[in-house]
Amino acid sequence: MTTATRAATDAAAMRRALGLAERGPAKGVNPRVGCVILSPDGDVLAEGWHRGAGTAHAEVDALAKLEPGAARGATAVVTLEPCNHTGRTGPCAAALVDAGIARVVYAVDDPGRHSAGGARTLRDAGVEVEPGVLADEVEAFLEDWLFAARERRPRVTVKWASSLDGRVAAADGTSRWITGEHARADVHRRRATADAIAVGTGTVLADDPALTARDADGALLDDQPVPVVFGRRPLPPDAAVLRHPHEAVTLPGADLAADLEELQRRGIRSLFVEGGPTLATAFLAAGIVDDLLVYLAPALVGGPRTAVGDLGVATIADTLRLHFTEVVRLGDDLLVVARPSHPETDTRERV
Amino acid sequence: MTTATRAATDAAAMRRALGLAERGPAKGVNPRVGCVILSPDGDVLAEGWHRGAGTAHAEVDALAKLEPGAARGATAVVTLEPCNHTGRTGPCAAALVDAGIARVVYAVDDPGRHSAGGARTLRDAGVEVEPGVLADEVEAFLEDWLFAARERRPRVTVKWASSLDGRVAAADGTSRWITGEHARADVHRRRATADAIAVGTGTVLADDPALTARDADGALLDDQPVPVVFGRRPLPPDAAVLRHPHEAVTLPGADLAADLEELQRRGIRSLFVEGGPTLATAFLAAGIVDDLLVYLAPALVGGPRTAVGDLGVATIADTLRLHFTEVVRLGDDLLVVARPSHPETDTRERV
Ligand SMILES: NC(=O)c1ccc[n+]([C@@H]2O[C@H](COP(=O)([O-])OP(=O)(O)OC[C@H]3O[C@@H](n4cnc5c(N)ncnc54)[C@H](OP(=O)(O)O)[C@@H]3O)[C@@H](O)[C@H]2O)c1
Ligand SMILES: NC(=O)c1ccc[n+]([C@@H]2O[C@H](COP(=O)([O-])OP(=O)(O)OC[C@H]3O[C@@H](n4cnc5c(N)ncnc54)[C@H](OP(=O)(O)O)[C@@H]3O)[C@@H](O)[C@H]2O)c1
Repeated sequence: MTTATRAATDAAAMRRALGLAERGPAKGVNPRVGCVILSPDGDVLAEGWHRGAGTAHAEVDALAKLEPGAARGATAVVTLEPCNHTGRTGPCAAALVDAGIARVVYAVDDPGRHSAGGARTLRDAGVEVEPGVLADEVEAFLEDWLFAARERRPRVTVKWASSLDGRVAAADGTSRWITGEHARADVHRRRATADAIAVGTGTVLADDPALTARDADGALLDDQPVPVVFGRRPLPPDAAVLRHPHEAVTLPGADLAADLEELQRRGIRSLFVEGGPTLATAFLAAGIVDDLLVYLAPALVGGPRTAVGDLGVATIADTLRLHFTEVVRLGDDLLVVARPSHPETDTRERV
Repeated sequence: MTTATRAATDAAAMRRALGLAERGPAKGVNPRVGCVILSPDGDVLAEGWHRGAGTAHAEVDALAKLEPGAARGATAVVTLEPCNHTGRTGPCAAALVDAGIARVVYAVDDPGRHSAGGARTLRDAGVEVEPGVLADEVEAFLEDWLFAARERRPRVTVKWASSLDGRVAAADGTSRWITGEHARADVHRRRATADAIAVGTGTVLADDPALTARDADGALLDDQPVPVVFGRRPLPPDAAVLRHPHEAVTLPGADLAADLEELQRRGIRSLFVEGGPTLATAFLAAGIVDDLLVYLAPALVGGPRTAVGDLGVATIADTLRLHFTEVVRLGDDLLVVARPSHPETDTRERV
């Protein structure tokens, strides 16, 4: 094979592997991975994909379809760097070496703390390794899993609904409904796209939210986020969140970074933080916010119940700078979507 | 003349009178008024307009151009109901009667507390009176003067610039600049369209603002609002506002309605309230706000320095409801334009 032919064969096999990966489960601890085994001539010998935690990895799934010895001298094309980690299954790098694979082509490096290093193991065993094939496509496909694996926490969206002057409730604590039905429907749609949805114990005790994603008629949407409650106070035994289709996760909240790492270990890649103000302020002050959704109602409330409390901004230069990425009218309300700015590293287009 | 011909002649003369009115000064205590005197056959005998407080009213200006007796049996077409009030000039209604005018056509009723009633005086003297000709056009032309005369106060725009969470400053009081240059330029453009611009003594003492409308280079724009300071504390003798092209007006602020009536008496038809938070909150709590301009910076500040203080909203049903009329991006910032909602009387289209 010429170099060009081989590159085209690799790319075609990688696209096939990506298609196989898509058959796997979209949520959970593990990424969706696909694998194609090619003969030295570029013929497909076997295919495999990962079906979720506790089942065979894609490489092992593919190898298992071959007679012993049939993979000798073959090329494995796999969407993610083969793992190096003995978990519920053995390390894939070793399995590929044992099967006599001569060449491994993969798209994206494994960012896992324990599982990374497969490429080095393969090279040390004399296997030819080619990383980065179709990397952009696989990167986009695995975006939320890669984010969580690299940052060791879920992607965090903080949401609140306030009056134009930044209040979430009147002096007596009443707040239903500051925003209208269009804004509430938008919240439910976005809830359904997150792996988990979090509130503080204050909100559970005050509002007893169900933390489910529902349609306009109150019926449960197909995808339900895992309910998470931050705080030390116990949940009332009749709390609505205890009747959620998923079991509620409770975390102390005193060390948010540690709690989020725990959520990532449980396979939560994206977390929708719905407040209340104390919890939202804690996330903001800790700098653990990736996206901000602020629903602004056409109203002024004044008084003490602010959406954001004390962020520790002593002087204006310490302000938490954002950039607005989107502004949407939802009925009478406005949705402002924003992201924290990282002036040193941020090259994202400002809208 | 047939009725139709007469209506057409009246309308043409009224349009001419409106053109004459436009020659008068756009600011000041008095409205811009134009007048055309027509012979019984519809020929133009004389024209007049008002040149500002202390000068002849439009009707008297027009009559003065005629020989004595020449107006006998004629029609006076005037944009505003002839006044009934002996002020710096005599009442126009009496002058028209004395000149022997047989018929008066006008567009809009005089809303003045003292000057209204001219139509009745004319009718009582046997003059035929026809109101409402081209009323919509003249109403639009005199909009701000009519608003001030009817409400006995200027039209009030309250403006602030805050972070997305509704803060105007950090804990130490620093705030320059929360919003960017595009937002500041927009404020200066809007300042120039107001008759007066107000702050509280707190802002004068903290920021020493010039209260001028300036271009990007800091040069004064052609139109300068009158600077108004609300509060009892004396202005420092070296305050920048004392070097304003217009003499500063100081008002105690304890009775905002009375102070605004005083401003209207001085010919201020529109007032741009720029804060600080204490003064803005007082205007909002008193329900004396017609338009709201909120410049939102892409930033979170937290802490005690809110744009709006205590509005006396005890429970959420008492919220000051608004409707958003416009949302504009200004550089990195957002401008939200809103109006208080008056559900009983408000038929304006919500955007
Ligand atoms: N408008 C909106 O968008 C919106 C959304 C949600 C709620 N709300 C309103 O907000 C009110 C409740 O406010 P809230 O601020 O008390 O509720 P919250 O933020 O839900 O709960 C606060 C509690 O969370 C716990 N917590 C966990 N981790 C924390 C951390 N890192 N820092 C601080 N506290 C942490 C603490 O409880 P422990 O003592 O148990 O540890 C704390 O008292 C209700 O009236 C609700 O209606 C409004
Ligand atoms: N971000 C913005 O858009 C913006 C705009 C302006 C100012 N600011 C900031 O706001 C701060 C000043 O805030 P502030 O609230 O102290 O200033 P302020 O609202 O300008 O002044 C408050 C003072 O106005 C007087 N006043 C007059 N009528 C009143 C009424 N009806 N009710 C209450 N007070 C009345 C009172 O003073 P007397 O005791 O003299 O009667 C009161 O103490 C400064 O730091 C400034 O930088 C921000």
